[in-house]
Amino acid sequence: MYQWQMIATDEEFEFVESDMPEIDKEEVLVEVAGCGLCHTDLSFWHYGVQTKHELPLTLGHEISGRVVKGPEHLLQKNVIIPAVLPCGECDLCKTGRSNICQNQIMPGNDFHGGFASHVKVPFKYLCPVPDEVLKKYSLAQLAVVADAISTPYQVIEKSELTSGDFAIVVGVGGIGIYGALIAKIKGAKVLAIDISDDKLSNAKEYGIDATINSSVLDFKEIKTRIRELAKELGTSKYGWKIFEFSGTKSGQELAFGLLTFASTLSIVGFTLDKLEVRLSNLMAFDAKLIGTWGCQPELYPEVVDLIKSDQLHIDHFVELFPMSKINEVIKDTLAHKFTKRSVLIPDFNSTN
Amino acid sequence: MYQWQMIATDEEFEFVESDMPEIDKEEVLVEVAGCGLCHTDLSFWHYGVQTKHELPLTLGHEISGRVVKGPEHLLQKNVIIPAVLPCGECDLCKTGRSNICQNQIMPGNDFHGGFASHVKVPFKYLCPVPDEVLKKYSLAQLAVVADAISTPYQVIEKSELTSGDFAIVVGVGGIGIYGALIAKIKGAKVLAIDISDDKLSNAKEYGIDATINSSVLDFKEIKTRIRELAKELGTSKYGWKIFEFSGTKSGQELAFGLLTFASTLSIVGFTLDKLEVRLSNLMAFDAKLIGTWGCQPELYPEVVDLIKSDQLHIDHFVELFPMSKINEVIKDTLAHKFTKRSVLIPDFNSTN
Repeated sequence: MYQWQMIATDEEFEFVESDMPEIDKEEVLVEVAGCGLCHTDLSFWHYGVQTKHELPLTLGHEISGRVVKGPEHLLQKNVIIPAVLPCGECDLCKTGRSNICQNQIMPGNDFHGGFASHVKVPFKYLCPVPDEVLKKYSLAQLAVVADAISTPYQVIEKSELTSGDFAIVVGVGGIGIYGALIAKIKGAKVLAIDISDDKLSNAKEYGIDATINSSVLDFKEIKTRIRELAKELGTSKYGWKIFEFSGTKSGQELAFGLLTFASTLSIVGFTLDKLEVRLSNLMAFDAKLIGTWGCQPELYPEVVDLIKSDQLHIDHFVELFPMSKINEVIKDTLAHKFTKRSVLIPDFNSTN
Repeated sequence: MYQWQMIATDEEFEFVESDMPEIDKEEVLVEVAGCGLCHTDLSFWHYGVQTKHELPLTLGHEISGRVVKGPEHLLQKNVIIPAVLPCGECDLCKTGRSNICQNQIMPGNDFHGGFASHVKVPFKYLCPVPDEVLKKYSLAQLAVVADAISTPYQVIEKSELTSGDFAIVVGVGGIGIYGALIAKIKGAKVLAIDISDDKLSNAKEYGIDATINSSVLDFKEIKTRIRELAKELGTSKYGWKIFEFSGTKSGQELAFGLLTFASTLSIVGFTLDKLEVRLSNLMAFDAKLIGTWGCQPELYPEVVDLIKSDQLHIDHFVELFPMSKINEVIKDTLAHKFTKRSVLIPDFNSTN
């Protein structure tokens, strides 16, 4: 099999050829169809976050593919590999918190991931892809289910967003855009906030109710505009469901500042930066902050159903690249050159 | 009727005599049995928080008493007056968030409160006190239900604490102690953290499983000790339910620092101070922060039931004073001289 492996921070991924791995009785070998490039990969490759498995390591945890080795009933199945693979046995798993299972393993972090021709994984939580969905999208495109779509899906579930709520999505990049779209599907009035006009017009085009470019307004102006929008959209002055996807200090400051009575702020984007906040505002507002890690694999079929039923369209927000371009794509991602999620498609036979 | 009114910040309360007020058809006149002195009263009287009603104003929102004027079916009933009196009609009220109703009124803030012989209030949400409960405690003692007990009760409901959980209560003063006791009633293993040995030994005496005096240990030592305690008490390493009742910056910093996987931190104490936190920890830990304001009046009967069924004992944590001592009691409270909740009992006939 072939892999693109991370050797060291900021160094070019290295092409590695090796024998097909042996699998044990709870594993399968998946032939990769596509693997998305995520901010978490950048954290490992550029921002100094350590992978759990030592380097060199094949990164990539947003994987779709076809089972080519394993138990009979799984062979040739098209699957999505959840980014978080819990044990299914511990107290957290048994109480609906499998996404934060402390025995969980993650491709491209605990073991060799998806920037490869093949990946060896436990099959317990694989999410099957119905043939019907493959009439709409390629299996490679569907890789984004494994993180970019499932993570916001779980966040929105946890936020208890209901029809008619006002959803404010800060950051509509590769993950946030799906947050905005899923909130819309759930019947919310949705406002997207970003610093990129391109991303905002993308959001608008796909049905998001309103947009604000936060780079051209100060905080007071933004808050005033949001209050006006809540009124224009016929939604409530209170109980806003705010989602922070940007993973930046300024995004988190803005999102925290927007808290009002009975609101819920979900923290999805990650940054090591701290910020200064008055935590007691949560008390005065009877408000809530929810952090969320990945997505329970148990919810993946619901996500696939959204796509199957044509409620969620994914092609506009995914861009496909041959995997041999991995070194360019990661640098361009770091340089904020893309407005869409990049998915890398193995092209080992043709180029290596 | 007689009232002790706040005239200005830090000035002695003034004794005021006036005619009995007229009541309208949705109101009653309650003869005050007791009125608790709360940190919120200190906020108004000393810390510069503005009351909604202009001064002079009779403070006091933790009130029990007997209905002496109003509709026939309520006359002579013993009642607790909820600290938060919502409208019952708005969207927030109708979706289970009545405690944060934006039309709510609060005695001793929006209108003349309980440091008086009588108080005029809407009767919609009065909580009746069963005779059985009055065989155990005086009506004056039961004033503490109106805030000191009901507020932590709602917090614990919102935290979804269940039997076997590890509850960490930061600050076991007049309100926090009830938080600790209610967590215990709900079957949690409870750790109390405070800077007062007196308060901690009080807590220990009434069944709290473990205590830590946080003034003699640094953060690392506290965290290590808590991990040991979780083990000793046979509870989980994760999913801790943390409650911040101290309303201090240091208490909030400690509580936030204790967050671990799948934990929930409830912010109950109020401080204007800001603190520097890494909000993304919530994401990495899949953790939650809950702020809570007062208590829905709808939950008061459940609180009274805890007392009626002898699950919650209140006398040890309440100290009664004649209301004529209000000026001394508020100064002594400010000077942290009390470990118990102070309840003032009208003594106008005997002393004024």
